[in-house]
Amino acid sequence: MGRLVLLLLLAFLMPGLAIPVPPALKALSNLHLSTSFTSRPSVVTKYSIHYFEQKIDHFGFKNEKTFKQRYLIADQHWRKEGGSILFYTGNEGDIIWFCNNTGFMWDVAEELKAMLVFAEHRYYGQSLPFGADSFQDSRHLNFLTSEQALADFAELIKHLKRTIPGAENQPFIALGGSYGGMLAAWFRMKYPHMVVGALAASAPIWQFEDIVPCGVFMKIVTTDFKRSGPNCSENIRSSWDAINRLTRNGTGLDWLSEALHLCTPLKNAQDVQHLKDWISETWVVCQYLKNSNLSDRELLQNIFQALNVYYNYSGQARCLNMSETSTSSLGSLGWSYQACTEMVMPFCTNGIDDMFEPHLWDLKAFSDDCFKQWGVKPRPSWITSMYGGKNISSHTNIIFSNGDLDPWSGGGVTKNITNTLVAIVIPEGAHHLDLRANNAFDPMTVLLARSLEVKYMKQWIRDFYAYLRKKH
Amino acid sequence: MGRLVLLLLLAFLMPGLAIPVPPALKALSNLHLSTSFTSRPSVVTKYSIHYFEQKIDHFGFKNEKTFKQRYLIADQHWRKEGGSILFYTGNEGDIIWFCNNTGFMWDVAEELKAMLVFAEHRYYGQSLPFGADSFQDSRHLNFLTSEQALADFAELIKHLKRTIPGAENQPFIALGGSYGGMLAAWFRMKYPHMVVGALAASAPIWQFEDIVPCGVFMKIVTTDFKRSGPNCSENIRSSWDAINRLTRNGTGLDWLSEALHLCTPLKNAQDVQHLKDWISETWVVCQYLKNSNLSDRELLQNIFQALNVYYNYSGQARCLNMSETSTSSLGSLGWSYQACTEMVMPFCTNGIDDMFEPHLWDLKAFSDDCFKQWGVKPRPSWITSMYGGKNISSHTNIIFSNGDLDPWSGGGVTKNITNTLVAIVIPEGAHHLDLRANNAFDPMTVLLARSLEVKYMKQWIRDFYAYLRKKH
Repeated sequence: MGRLVLLLLLAFLMPGLAIPVPPALKALSNLHLSTSFTSRPSVVTKYSIHYFEQKIDHFGFKNEKTFKQRYLIADQHWRKEGGSILFYTGNEGDIIWFCNNTGFMWDVAEELKAMLVFAEHRYYGQSLPFGADSFQDSRHLNFLTSEQALADFAELIKHLKRTIPGAENQPFIALGGSYGGMLAAWFRMKYPHMVVGALAASAPIWQFEDIVPCGVFMKIVTTDFKRSGPNCSENIRSSWDAINRLTRNGTGLDWLSEALHLCTPLKNAQDVQHLKDWISETWVVCQYLKNSNLSDRELLQNIFQALNVYYNYSGQARCLNMSETSTSSLGSLGWSYQACTEMVMPFCTNGIDDMFEPHLWDLKAFSDDCFKQWGVKPRPSWITSMYGGKNISSHTNIIFSNGDLDPWSGGGVTKNITNTLVAIVIPEGAHHLDLRANNAFDPMTVLLARSLEVKYMKQWIRDFYAYLRKKH
Repeated sequence: MGRLVLLLLLAFLMPGLAIPVPPALKALSNLHLSTSFTSRPSVVTKYSIHYFEQKIDHFGFKNEKTFKQRYLIADQHWRKEGGSILFYTGNEGDIIWFCNNTGFMWDVAEELKAMLVFAEHRYYGQSLPFGADSFQDSRHLNFLTSEQALADFAELIKHLKRTIPGAENQPFIALGGSYGGMLAAWFRMKYPHMVVGALAASAPIWQFEDIVPCGVFMKIVTTDFKRSGPNCSENIRSSWDAINRLTRNGTGLDWLSEALHLCTPLKNAQDVQHLKDWISETWVVCQYLKNSNLSDRELLQNIFQALNVYYNYSGQARCLNMSETSTSSLGSLGWSYQACTEMVMPFCTNGIDDMFEPHLWDLKAFSDDCFKQWGVKPRPSWITSMYGGKNISSHTNIIFSNGDLDPWSGGGVTKNITNTLVAIVIPEGAHHLDLRANNAFDPMTVLLARSLEVKYMKQWIRDFYAYLRKKH
């Protein structure tokens, strides 16, 4: 199971999201975690688009060049008296997508008299430091780090305070989901003078080094599959060996290539490994895998049904193309680089606690891959040096929310650390469901989570104004 | 009054120190602030010298090169059970100098069962990222920032915890004076997972932008001179006009060149300005300037006496060489670059609240100078973005100590911010006197300050162990 699959997995489980989700994935994700997704039209009404000139390198003075960071503003409900400013710390994708899919902010704007700001992360969407050359090589990518992104947010907030009359003496609150949630939490940790608090939704800030077991992610995935129907996870677990048995000889390779309607037939063990990686993406479509006691061939024909729904949802394709994956957009390039530098998240499987073939976490191989792809070497322990790992109790005013269905919750903060570093767990929640717009299908637990989040934010805002009054 | 003079002023008032102090300056500084300096042999007994391989660039992945950061360890009093680790966040100079001149740490080591660690700041002493080429150009200097230095400290602490048996579960405390005090405070702010608290002695963290009035520094200098004797500051204030009057014509220029025994005679207005800058360094030697009601010529002859003591303390020089200043050591190169990038501290005079000719703070001219000298442009507001300016109340466990005699106290924290961000003011203290070794001549106020500092540190250590026990 290669890095690719992990990235894809991340995509499918992250509506919020890690990597821009292709249509197929979006449609199918409803099959699996129907309570957790909404295709309801967004409540987004109107926002304006702006650009702010950022230094390409905040941490060095040789390079004086700048780029235009895009950000969005919606101020329909903003009040200059007693209002607040909700600041979305953009993650790895086009900021318009996050703006349209973070309905929670739109839903609470009126109650918090809030201006909404959505700040695009450098190297994503239109905020490309070197335009089309941004991903050309490690020299151009050198400024794609979480630290630079946080510095962008800090400079942008200063700019907003300076230029929007009324904004200077208002409390800013950072919000984000997934990697954006990590950024929201880290922003409050590193720049507490810029935001009075942070809502970090589904932020796996501990999915680094050995802070949590590397198998926790896949274990939760497997648990989810067990919930979704009998035999599903067992069938998947069996399928790997079925493939291995069948593909020991040429006849089996041919049979399987045909059964799966592959555009390019399987030729060798490497192709088979590629196939297994690729198939892993179909975990979502368990309704085709509900029978037990199938022969190897029957099982694999069912697997084809699943693949066909996944990759050929329009029914137009005559065969399935393994080179077609869901990570072919620009955003995934940037994230692949980040995963190869700072965001080194170890994953592993043992085939016992999870439904996958056993794979150790192999940092050496991972690092070699990264060097081959990007010409850089990962620094797996840097994030812990920088952001503190488990030792973060001296910070304040961060909400960590997590859904129990979300595999990323394994690397998240799911227990209160202090009175002001609080965890909200949503038993029926998937990846930052709480940041999505209110929806008639929402489980009660997510409604409770959202109202608790609003309560905390209101408290931060009150504290801010109380402190301001005391000062004057 | 040029930048040079400000740097020199900084040197003379910073025994602790900004820039390595040349012998003349050291000797004379005793004349002025005798309570604040000690030439007593250090209590330093024994330390070992070590080197740690640091990434040259912590914030980018293109450059994988490393350099050797020097650090010193003294563990005579360290206890593995219930001990602590005092970590000096080295500033702009050779770390051995700071080790020898931070007697406070040596004095309290036994009481705190403490290991002492002195970490050299990159680009100073022996910790040169590119060896002899380190100051060659802006490309080589690009990694000389406070952020990189703090990251060095974080990585070094991780290394110590990993490699010294017993260090892992001990509380680290950051200590530093002057710029090193700023680093100690900022280190606690940015890496609270690395140190349980910080003692920031004479740290002018607010000497940026317009956080404090740009004239506060020179105003305190003038106040100090008023204390040191009658007529002193008045004579200095008068001398500028005396020079201006005398040098309106060639005869005056010649007379003055001879009266001051200048190696190179004054020729024009530019030379005169240079002279005034250069003379400013002699503020320390006020005993030659005690008479009032002097004629211009008498006054300037007295000025010669002062200059002669200052620059010709051995009595060997036959004339005074204006190109000889006290900033010709390596450390000052690094600091000059830092002052031209992040550490942009505005200074100004008005001739009313202070004894100097009026000079506005001219950022444009300063910036142009910097570009000429280093090929970089200052970013005067960056430090505030990064470290919060006055808005730092959410941090904890920092002691800010300041001496009332110290002009740097004007940019320091001299009032409690919260219960755990506390200010200690030492009425008879000069630049971080509290960090020096105990001395028979110490005023009572500095003894009280030191014991209060120990009290706070002991509290942090107790809290750390209490938290550790609770966790297990």
